[in-house]
Amino acid sequence: MQQRMYPVDYGLLTPAWAATPVAEAASDAAFAQGMLDVESAWARVQAEAGLCSQADADAVTAISKVELYDLGALAGRGPDGANALIPLLGMMREQLAASGAPSTAALALHRGATSQDVIDSALMLLASRSIASMRNDLLAAADSLSALAHRHSATLCVARSLTQHALPTVFGLRAANWLAALTAAGRQLDAAAAELPLQWGGAVGTLASLHQRLGAALPYKSDHQLSARAAELTANLAAELGLAVPVAPWHTVRQPVLALGSALASVAAATGTFGADVLTASRPEIAELSEPREAGKGGSSAMPQKQNPVHSVLLRNAALAAPAHLATLYTAAGTAVDERPDGGWHTEWSALRELVRLAGGAAHHASVLASGLGVHPEAMARNMALSGDLLVSERISTVASPLVAGGKAAVQELVLESLRTGTPLRSLLQGVLPSDLDNQLFLDDLLNPASYLGSAHDFINRIRDDFNDWKNA
Amino acid sequence: MQQRMYPVDYGLLTPAWAATPVAEAASDAAFAQGMLDVESAWARVQAEAGLCSQADADAVTAISKVELYDLGALAGRGPDGANALIPLLGMMREQLAASGAPSTAALALHRGATSQDVIDSALMLLASRSIASMRNDLLAAADSLSALAHRHSATLCVARSLTQHALPTVFGLRAANWLAALTAAGRQLDAAAAELPLQWGGAVGTLASLHQRLGAALPYKSDHQLSARAAELTANLAAELGLAVPVAPWHTVRQPVLALGSALASVAAATGTFGADVLTASRPEIAELSEPREAGKGGSSAMPQKQNPVHSVLLRNAALAAPAHLATLYTAAGTAVDERPDGGWHTEWSALRELVRLAGGAAHHASVLASGLGVHPEAMARNMALSGDLLVSERISTVASPLVAGGKAAVQELVLESLRTGTPLRSLLQGVLPSDLDNQLFLDDLLNPASYLGSAHDFINRIRDDFNDWKNA
Amino acid sequence: MQQRMYPVDYGLLTPAWAATPVAEAASDAAFAQGMLDVESAWARVQAEAGLCSQADADAVTAISKVELYDLGALAGRGPDGANALIPLLGMMREQLAASGAPSTAALALHRGATSQDVIDSALMLLASRSIASMRNDLLAAADSLSALAHRHSATLCVARSLTQHALPTVFGLRAANWLAALTAAGRQLDAAAAELPLQWGGAVGTLASLHQRLGAALPYKSDHQLSARAAELTANLAAELGLAVPVAPWHTVRQPVLALGSALASVAAATGTFGADVLTASRPEIAELSEPREAGKGGSSAMPQKQNPVHSVLLRNAALAAPAHLATLYTAAGTAVDERPDGGWHTEWSALRELVRLAGGAAHHASVLASGLGVHPEAMARNMALSGDLLVSERISTVASPLVAGGKAAVQELVLESLRTGTPLRSLLQGVLPSDLDNQLFLDDLLNPASYLGSAHDFINRIRDDFNDWKNA
Amino acid sequence: MQQRMYPVDYGLLTPAWAATPVAEAASDAAFAQGMLDVESAWARVQAEAGLCSQADADAVTAISKVELYDLGALAGRGPDGANALIPLLGMMREQLAASGAPSTAALALHRGATSQDVIDSALMLLASRSIASMRNDLLAAADSLSALAHRHSATLCVARSLTQHALPTVFGLRAANWLAALTAAGRQLDAAAAELPLQWGGAVGTLASLHQRLGAALPYKSDHQLSARAAELTANLAAELGLAVPVAPWHTVRQPVLALGSALASVAAATGTFGADVLTASRPEIAELSEPREAGKGGSSAMPQKQNPVHSVLLRNAALAAPAHLATLYTAAGTAVDERPDGGWHTEWSALRELVRLAGGAAHHASVLASGLGVHPEAMARNMALSGDLLVSERISTVASPLVAGGKAAVQELVLESLRTGTPLRSLLQGVLPSDLDNQLFLDDLLNPASYLGSAHDFINRIRDDFNDWKNA
Repeated sequence: MQQRMYPVDYGLLTPAWAATPVAEAASDAAFAQGMLDVESAWARVQAEAGLCSQADADAVTAISKVELYDLGALAGRGPDGANALIPLLGMMREQLAASGAPSTAALALHRGATSQDVIDSALMLLASRSIASMRNDLLAAADSLSALAHRHSATLCVARSLTQHALPTVFGLRAANWLAALTAAGRQLDAAAAELPLQWGGAVGTLASLHQRLGAALPYKSDHQLSARAAELTANLAAELGLAVPVAPWHTVRQPVLALGSALASVAAATGTFGADVLTASRPEIAELSEPREAGKGGSSAMPQKQNPVHSVLLRNAALAAPAHLATLYTAAGTAVDERPDGGWHTEWSALRELVRLAGGAAHHASVLASGLGVHPEAMARNMALSGDLLVSERISTVASPLVAGGKAAVQELVLESLRTGTPLRSLLQGVLPSDLDNQLFLDDLLNPASYLGSAHDFINRIRDDFNDWKNA
Repeated sequence: MQQRMYPVDYGLLTPAWAATPVAEAASDAAFAQGMLDVESAWARVQAEAGLCSQADADAVTAISKVELYDLGALAGRGPDGANALIPLLGMMREQLAASGAPSTAALALHRGATSQDVIDSALMLLASRSIASMRNDLLAAADSLSALAHRHSATLCVARSLTQHALPTVFGLRAANWLAALTAAGRQLDAAAAELPLQWGGAVGTLASLHQRLGAALPYKSDHQLSARAAELTANLAAELGLAVPVAPWHTVRQPVLALGSALASVAAATGTFGADVLTASRPEIAELSEPREAGKGGSSAMPQKQNPVHSVLLRNAALAAPAHLATLYTAAGTAVDERPDGGWHTEWSALRELVRLAGGAAHHASVLASGLGVHPEAMARNMALSGDLLVSERISTVASPLVAGGKAAVQELVLESLRTGTPLRSLLQGVLPSDLDNQLFLDDLLNPASYLGSAHDFINRIRDDFNDWKNA
Repeated sequence: MQQRMYPVDYGLLTPAWAATPVAEAASDAAFAQGMLDVESAWARVQAEAGLCSQADADAVTAISKVELYDLGALAGRGPDGANALIPLLGMMREQLAASGAPSTAALALHRGATSQDVIDSALMLLASRSIASMRNDLLAAADSLSALAHRHSATLCVARSLTQHALPTVFGLRAANWLAALTAAGRQLDAAAAELPLQWGGAVGTLASLHQRLGAALPYKSDHQLSARAAELTANLAAELGLAVPVAPWHTVRQPVLALGSALASVAAATGTFGADVLTASRPEIAELSEPREAGKGGSSAMPQKQNPVHSVLLRNAALAAPAHLATLYTAAGTAVDERPDGGWHTEWSALRELVRLAGGAAHHASVLASGLGVHPEAMARNMALSGDLLVSERISTVASPLVAGGKAAVQELVLESLRTGTPLRSLLQGVLPSDLDNQLFLDDLLNPASYLGSAHDFINRIRDDFNDWKNA
Repeated sequence: MQQRMYPVDYGLLTPAWAATPVAEAASDAAFAQGMLDVESAWARVQAEAGLCSQADADAVTAISKVELYDLGALAGRGPDGANALIPLLGMMREQLAASGAPSTAALALHRGATSQDVIDSALMLLASRSIASMRNDLLAAADSLSALAHRHSATLCVARSLTQHALPTVFGLRAANWLAALTAAGRQLDAAAAELPLQWGGAVGTLASLHQRLGAALPYKSDHQLSARAAELTANLAAELGLAVPVAPWHTVRQPVLALGSALASVAAATGTFGADVLTASRPEIAELSEPREAGKGGSSAMPQKQNPVHSVLLRNAALAAPAHLATLYTAAGTAVDERPDGGWHTEWSALRELVRLAGGAAHHASVLASGLGVHPEAMARNMALSGDLLVSERISTVASPLVAGGKAAVQELVLESLRTGTPLRSLLQGVLPSDLDNQLFLDDLLNPASYLGSAHDFINRIRDDFNDWKNA
């Protein structure tokens, strides 16, 4: 119980990711820790390169723990310079002083860097760390769906087009299609995660200050040699942080952010379709699927019989919310100017972080939903029966038309008569088929949905194989 | 200094509104207080109507203080039911029990209501309270701009079209145009604020449970009478909360949210244009305007001569971020289904709250920027001089063409010659004007930008009057 | 049959509005006619004011017919000046010359105006004209829904929350909720339509060139008098075009565009909810509603039994497409700079036009859908029966708990037992109710969904009255 | 000159892509031709496989020319079935009949396919063909930028951060940064283009009808063999059309569309930054860059001295417009349901096509702008001089501080004194530097911007090399 309310967010209005692993991995504290990690890694890289002492680096590392900082106060000073790193540096210097660090430590801190270097790199770290757990959830969800696709490869159900009954299919193929979307999004996420770049360019992306320091401190002579050494240090820093080495600073070249954002939004879209299908299928009138019943979840005290499909609702929430944040990233990128942007960059931060959260939350809810999804073949059969023989009218039209006087038009007329009168289509067909045909056997096969599944099994296998390729890559 | 990092947001990634008044007014704590306010107001309305005892209402009111609740824990349980009100009710019942409230108080709590009633109403309260301070900031900004428009109604500067010099204008008209946008957005905000509706419908928007209670407890007989009484209680609740009485519950009729969101986004757009113009005009090469120099703001320790236009950057940030949140509101509204939506509604919350914050932050930064804006007429004059006589080429073309052999084409040729050779247009014109004209006086007037301002003063006055109409409405 | 393919759009990829009235009203031809209308109206206003001859105005009016212009060629030249008005003026001058117009007519054409004046005003005309027919469709849809709400005010059906059965309601209230959304959007549209402003400001929004002309041609002396006269002419032009008189030019003050766009998007959101509900309810398993069967619509030749809910699909299409266009308008508005914008304005055009089309198409499909909607009370009853007595569990919990040993918890246990075992809740309740109660009558009333409708009828009446207020305003 | 105005778009409101190569490549006619191409390719694949006669395939191929169809009429019938393929099939059958084709040709037409197969594949064809020319423009733009980066690798200019002067850089690095964005976007586009998949799944994505036909006509027995044969035919069709073979049908798995859309939007963002920088730099007060002067472009007849930066304006237009379309694709993907979507899919079409157009138009304008960009080193030098010695204050602070009594604080005070008084920083420094230093030489080097460029040249080289890797891949 708190005594004072700070203007902080706990996630009351964002249930799509609250209380999932990403809530912690993408919190303001995680971002602040990311900034501290970048600063301390840079001190260590400098020490290794002889640009500062090991004691300096140790001192910076020692104070690079987020627990030491008052993040509320930090946020309050953020707008002064339009970012959080500037006041954080001030606080870090105070911590250094208070910790009895050598006075040179404060000089090594942030040496040659600009706030955008640290913030961009910290956001990449936040993304990288969040994706690690998100990926586990995605894989878990995909594994469950792959198992469902396999288990239900012969579970007949109706395939729907524009909400209407169209033809028979198997539930395993629907699950496989969810899996296909997760696999594609997961691959895209892996590709983006592997290329999350360090940002390191100094005030205007030239590393001029670092050159100055290298020139003064070390026996490098030519610009070329200094540039090579600066590139080495940049690579060392990237390695220390587990980030990719960029071609060059990307202060105004925001394509890495766009690729990352697109992958995250693709995750939310993939899980969104899964959730949307479960929402439809768990309606009481359809009842083909049900959410896992978990203690304390989805219930209503006033209506105890009611079980809300909360995971699906939150997947839908994530799918509806993510696209706008992605648009913001692209708008910000396309309006970047000069050597460092004038507001577009600042707009990226929360949009990118929110995409991380939505994708992470969605991956988590998808894994819970997929692992506990209730599948009800008897309801699938009952729903399929609503359309009766008409469910294979496409096949009847193709196969029976050549055998019937009047051809396709005559068969269509029978279909409409069946719809109008309720007379089973089978009876109507029997009356018009040639007498020399073994009607019963012919019709048994013709009207059997299980023999009109086309490549469904093959597609299930292909999609599962493709998933395994990703999983084992 | 905190000992443990919760996954909370302090605003590190959202400088556009961090540390402005709206940060507190639209915080999770403010939202939670809003939910508590709705619940306690309803208890009081019930007591007044004899549906519960005054002691019950007092007990509910006593525990409706946000300080009593662990919001982190609340957020952690939000996803269980896909909203924060459900676990809050559990916590409120615990508080009632712990406070020694009569056992009937727990029955009166939330009686007949649904979570959407409380959450929607709490969001409207949050918006209403945030708008109150936002409006002050908007008015302050507008007052400053109105003063600027008046003060600089004769300060000549160049008017630009598609970034290029076009004609002369006065700086006062530019300030008036910013004012016009703020006035229009402010009016829209007032209209939305005046119509923020209470949500009150019960589980499916029929108030069935309330009817049940009214029928049991009070001598109302007919459905009609019960409905009238339910409407009275609804109106009482709205009055208690300072919200508008809706025509009917609007669980799936989200137009009030759209109107509110549009008004908030319009504020961000209006201040965005102001910020964008200041960003341009404060470039060192243009230097017509400058941000207020405030201690500790916008500075760079590495580059002490540099003063970043942070208020304008944050206004641009808000203008770039707001539209996507608005799109989310419309997407959510347009996909609402059934009697209570299946994810769209959940998607609205953070989008709407973020619009409140962006508009509030933008209004605040606009008020600071407008009140301290540095205006530099000498730079305006210098920039205008870059175009020389060519700045009134439109006028020259109109006025001189009939006097010159060759007409408009000949005059255009002179303009191009002046551009090509650098010869002042005045000299070239002198050579071709009829000899009986008092060339010097004619040209003095023709080329005087101050006499080619059209209705600029009139427009300034109209816009200022229109602002005053709003202000005094 | 065409001999050559121009790069033109016929609407193949935009079925949401193709072949509806707005397709013509918002076409490129309609926009071009709008530009011509503005130019010719201005010539007439000038003639009336003595700024040009009546013959000049007649000549301009005579060539202001869109049929005279090759719009493909015009579009091809648009990018040269980044707008279509500049090349259109060239073509108009050619037409004037070819038509034998007095040479002064070309001077009067576009006198003192800027391309943005004409394009903005033409877009307002296009919107105004499109809204006129859109409003008819909206009113027709609303009338149909109002009639449905009335007709089905006692048609019981299940109310759903988060896709699950919650409580009973009547279909009339669902129809009334669709009506409420249309009414709110319609009111917003009316408000926007009433304020669509003329744009008239000249090159930089000062009307300097018009002042010049007025000063030369007419006996106005002071700036103040000239401004008053310019304002009169502006008002005359607005009247001639049926547009509102703006406070001042709004070249960079885009709030009128935002208000219009918001209203249009609100229409698409309102009809989107209607379409979404019909899509759900016309699923074969639910079958409570069906789209009108129209010859040639929604059919599938391969699957003749299949009737696609095309109107609802297109309403959903419009609802999903509109929000992004609205976001574009706000982004463009918030990045406007200088006296005339540098790309933001250009971005508005197609976004605004597309919103006009989507709203117009949606209004049309909504009117067709609402007027022919199939309502199936027997399916509603059948679906309601799926939940049996559990549908009023909220009421049972409230009413029976005080009568049963163990109270609410005991009743909830019975509900769960009923869910688990399939035993009707009524039997279980009978076993625990006090013996002195007339069980049968008590339970008949308790479990009767028709007596648990709360204010449903009242809300239907209020919503219908509110609609009538709008309709008759 | 046309006699009747159809409700068609010529591009009057979309100058960002009108009259560029993509206007034709992504027109409705191109889309219709794409649908015809898919249908005729399928007939040929069938003939090759013995599923129909060669004469049938020839007949279908003969009528698969877009010139044969009235696209206006086609669009008018699109809404009947909510897509354009259904009425097109009817028209194709009429053409077959009219052409004297064998009656079996009509049976082969569209056999086993669904409208989504043809429309999705046609859109992929449209994208593929549009990207071909777009890629040429992108490469041309990139080549020009690479040359600029090289040519201006020593052209000093000021680097700006948050609009303010920060440090020296070279113009070549700015051009290289534009190149870096184009390279990244181009790579992403290539990756997407290489994976544009055929859609082929039949009514519900099982190829059931094709199986039926294969089973009837050909000696395949097992489901497995039929699936293998169906996969062969699918691969043949993909090869015939130049599209990728998908893992399985992707009717509701829209990740390929998302990847394509993201790449296209990334192009618009990359060129947007280029355009934004040119817009800033071509302002008369800055004048470092200028758009190519082309006859008839960007001029104003009323203000002949004015040259509007139309290419940059259109690049900005594309960058501001694209993100919203991308958001629409993600929203549509995330709400797909069942085996074929209920409106989301329909929403994708125009959003995807518009992204193709915006990226194509932007690539074209970027190539024109880059190839003719005017670069003005003297203006760059003049602007740099505005900041004087203060431009290297970062360096002064680092290098001089250890040499001056009072250290960094003392140096910062000198900077502020220089700002306040206008006294050159050099003079102030001279007064405080130790007397044993060769002040003049030391200060010459210290204050020389050309020796404070860090890795600028190295970054230019790396970016150009990276571009060449892409180009030559």
